[in-house]
Amino acid sequence: MVPYLVRRWPAWCFGTSPGWWRKGPCEALVWPAGALGSEEQRRPASAPRAWGVGVAAGPACRAHSSSAGAHRVPLTQERYPVRRLPFSVVSEEDLAAFERIVPGRVITDPEELETANVDWLRTVRGCSQVLLKPRTTEEVSHILRHCHDRNVAVTPQGGNTGMVGGSVPVFDEVVISTALMNQVISFHSVSGILVCQAGCILEELSQYLEPRGFAMPLDLGAKGSCHIGGNVATNAGGLRLLRYGSLRGTVLGLEVVLADGTILDLLSSLRKDNTGYDLKQLFIGSEGTLGVITAVSILCPPKPEAVSVALLGCAGFAEILQTFGTCRRMLGETLSAFEFMDAECVQLVGHHLHLACPVQESPFYVLIETSGSNAGHDGEKLGSFLEHALASGLVTDGTVASDQRKAKALWALRERISEALSCDGYVYKYDISLPVERLYDLVMDLRARLGASAKHVVGYGHLGDGNLHLNVTSEAFSPTLLGALEPHVYAWTARQRGSVSAEHGLGFQKKNVIGYSKPPQAVDLMRALKAMLDPKGLLNPYKTLPSQA
Amino acid sequence: MVPYLVRRWPAWCFGTSPGWWRKGPCEALVWPAGALGSEEQRRPASAPRAWGVGVAAGPACRAHSSSAGAHRVPLTQERYPVRRLPFSVVSEEDLAAFERIVPGRVITDPEELETANVDWLRTVRGCSQVLLKPRTTEEVSHILRHCHDRNVAVTPQGGNTGMVGGSVPVFDEVVISTALMNQVISFHSVSGILVCQAGCILEELSQYLEPRGFAMPLDLGAKGSCHIGGNVATNAGGLRLLRYGSLRGTVLGLEVVLADGTILDLLSSLRKDNTGYDLKQLFIGSEGTLGVITAVSILCPPKPEAVSVALLGCAGFAEILQTFGTCRRMLGETLSAFEFMDAECVQLVGHHLHLACPVQESPFYVLIETSGSNAGHDGEKLGSFLEHALASGLVTDGTVASDQRKAKALWALRERISEALSCDGYVYKYDISLPVERLYDLVMDLRARLGASAKHVVGYGHLGDGNLHLNVTSEAFSPTLLGALEPHVYAWTARQRGSVSAEHGLGFQKKNVIGYSKPPQAVDLMRALKAMLDPKGLLNPYKTLPSQA
Repeated sequence: MVPYLVRRWPAWCFGTSPGWWRKGPCEALVWPAGALGSEEQRRPASAPRAWGVGVAAGPACRAHSSSAGAHRVPLTQERYPVRRLPFSVVSEEDLAAFERIVPGRVITDPEELETANVDWLRTVRGCSQVLLKPRTTEEVSHILRHCHDRNVAVTPQGGNTGMVGGSVPVFDEVVISTALMNQVISFHSVSGILVCQAGCILEELSQYLEPRGFAMPLDLGAKGSCHIGGNVATNAGGLRLLRYGSLRGTVLGLEVVLADGTILDLLSSLRKDNTGYDLKQLFIGSEGTLGVITAVSILCPPKPEAVSVALLGCAGFAEILQTFGTCRRMLGETLSAFEFMDAECVQLVGHHLHLACPVQESPFYVLIETSGSNAGHDGEKLGSFLEHALASGLVTDGTVASDQRKAKALWALRERISEALSCDGYVYKYDISLPVERLYDLVMDLRARLGASAKHVVGYGHLGDGNLHLNVTSEAFSPTLLGALEPHVYAWTARQRGSVSAEHGLGFQKKNVIGYSKPPQAVDLMRALKAMLDPKGLLNPYKTLPSQA
Repeated sequence: MVPYLVRRWPAWCFGTSPGWWRKGPCEALVWPAGALGSEEQRRPASAPRAWGVGVAAGPACRAHSSSAGAHRVPLTQERYPVRRLPFSVVSEEDLAAFERIVPGRVITDPEELETANVDWLRTVRGCSQVLLKPRTTEEVSHILRHCHDRNVAVTPQGGNTGMVGGSVPVFDEVVISTALMNQVISFHSVSGILVCQAGCILEELSQYLEPRGFAMPLDLGAKGSCHIGGNVATNAGGLRLLRYGSLRGTVLGLEVVLADGTILDLLSSLRKDNTGYDLKQLFIGSEGTLGVITAVSILCPPKPEAVSVALLGCAGFAEILQTFGTCRRMLGETLSAFEFMDAECVQLVGHHLHLACPVQESPFYVLIETSGSNAGHDGEKLGSFLEHALASGLVTDGTVASDQRKAKALWALRERISEALSCDGYVYKYDISLPVERLYDLVMDLRARLGASAKHVVGYGHLGDGNLHLNVTSEAFSPTLLGALEPHVYAWTARQRGSVSAEHGLGFQKKNVIGYSKPPQAVDLMRALKAMLDPKGLLNPYKTLPSQA
């Protein structure tokens, strides 16, 4: 047991992010030798800390935008067809009760509330009048019991880095932030099992584990802001899923507070436990609609000793698939990422961000990462694979990064695609799971369907996980183009038995497309679960489940 | 899509297994060069095919037992304090209806029913009068709809290799066998995703995958008989969990029939899908009490190119733990098993089964397996680790198996412990999860507590998973000894926040000890789930959830 205080990231760091969809002049971020960091590291000091999961709008565009006030996000209740449910309005008596439960941590200051009411993509805005910052599970329990008795709705909030408007209020729900629940409870250096409060920031957990020889089993772009509780509540995917699997396997236990304030202690630190139904799974990925996650127990893998990155050019998508198969066979257990991107992605990154691609022009590119315990062995495996891939014509050109700086530079070409897209105009974004062999067909289908009405139609993503990031750009928002895209993209995905939300969840914005990926019987059962666990519907209302007809 | 007919294992192969607890002369199974196979391969042709999960009573003892009739297992309703719930009794009209649903596959022959009524450990016996063998999900749905309308209780049954009496009827429940639901539906050679019916036998799925370059992500002793649907329904752990994680991560989709006959199609073949609550998790590990699993989609890893096994002696349990840490660091991603056993285990295997241990006598032994994509690299890693472990005094002696035959011989020392124990007398068996550093304390505690009243108190198991198999033997069953063991073992485990059932589940026999590992709030929520999904309580009654006071 090594209790450890994770440094708190104060709420004022979450500044508003201006002009998300606005097309403006892009700052020229060239590729200076030795100066390449992650997107997090590169952001200007004035840019928001919140950072999205594999999504557009990097600092290059945003740094040139003007103040938040000039681009105030419309209220959700005005922009979307949604009606307030008959919850109680927070009263002075409620505020006084909250002050007794979390003294000095009842926030009603409008500026601080602004960051809690608006999602980081700046697409939705609630009008909550109060933000609570509990430090303990008992405080969360007391808050929820009070709200339950008074019929007050609540929205749990972690780092507020979600992509589907799931972590901000829709109307005046009370926001319960996990920002001060940021303690590591224990870490076992033999088993690698970490137990911590829900508000620990992912990157700080990684930093905590690093000198202890372990790593977090998940990694994603928002790591500098996102909370582990939010990661679990949204079943975050990210960059390491290919290697370490999903949170459904690595999360060993949870502590959850139910809608009526009941504390459900499922905080097991065991790899195996078959005593009854695995209740924690109910809360993983349920976006705070079934309970508030207050602590997490998670299995952490040993930190890899060596990491290598290769960027390869491929003549076609069929070759990409063959390369993936060969890769799995020859790189075996060292393969930790297999990302792909099409030629237009690389052209956009070059055009808007001035990042040069070190591999000769190709219709497709793959980025392969290996992480292992022995640099020599890993290098040999990668070398043999590359030799075979080149000799057999699977790949046409390639480069390997032998040090951290170059590896980061290669990753930048993949990670900054979304940033480049945001510089290209209005972006229509889809996060789709498909059978891997059909992954690119949707991109080609859309190119043919949209013709000149779209500026660019690009595809990239976590090929190893069957996860396509499909993006379409146009000069400005076009209802006609949107009509050509939706529901076509969802219906196409449904025909392949794909998922219309691979890793981002449904939240507020995608809840009504659930039917494209789940049959009515499943949605009915989800409603029954919600009714059972939260009969008053107080937890994160208007999210995840589709609106009732 | 590669539809494939898996060869059916006919029900008559599941012969009765005689004289489970009877102590008798043990056949001398010496260690002949070149003749060592798995326990499955070694069993006499007349022995039952059903084979347990890491549990005692190998063929050595059983081959000498007499016919089943001489050791008829008492009826559960006579042996245990359980009262029949007011379900309908199967009538002639019901049989006629079943015959219309599954023509020619309504089994009422007493001999065939015997194998369906008795668990393979021969500890419980139901008195079902009918066994149904559907081939399709629709047939299962029609059966359940009929039973629901008529208030008839059912017991789903796979390979009937469970360890806690979960897969046989307690009274006269209708048995629904998945034995004929044994088709592979599809296999994708790029993603490694297998979709198959629930009755496919685990070993046959492995054989199907092997020439395709893939492997099943789970392996266990019962592989020759157990069905994948049963594996999922019991959340089977086994030998590969350390490497490939639990079924909660590797199972991608399920098809389930609910109590009222509703077919719930969650048979996704996607690694990522965050559209709503992950309903399939409800059914994984719920032992057929919430729905009948009819098909499974599972992510299969590439088949390892090279496998090596090492057996090492350690001076103490502290050294075992240090060896585990070193192992994880130096063997990294190639480590696929880390099993431990104490000196008494090895002595019993030597005494009863005449298996010689090639490592000098030690208080503890560890068996390490590496599986990787490159024999040379894996061998080098293992060599470096062994050199370090010996030089630093972590291990006192060791041997490495460089070929399959020798590797199997080393595995036999670990895998046949339970067989040796069954030759030693009456065996009290516990399958416990504990924080890894406390894993052996319970064994030492019991040795001190029981003194001469026990013949042997031994500990072994999946150390890498924190899973202890604790076994106590005595000349014959002793209520006094049982009283000294229970509830002490469960209470001790509870104090360490361990699990009283790591991988075997609760079934009929352990359902009332759930409170040692789960708080009352969790058990209440489990009851609510059961009531929601199966309000009439027809699915596998008397199992998993504790008896109501």
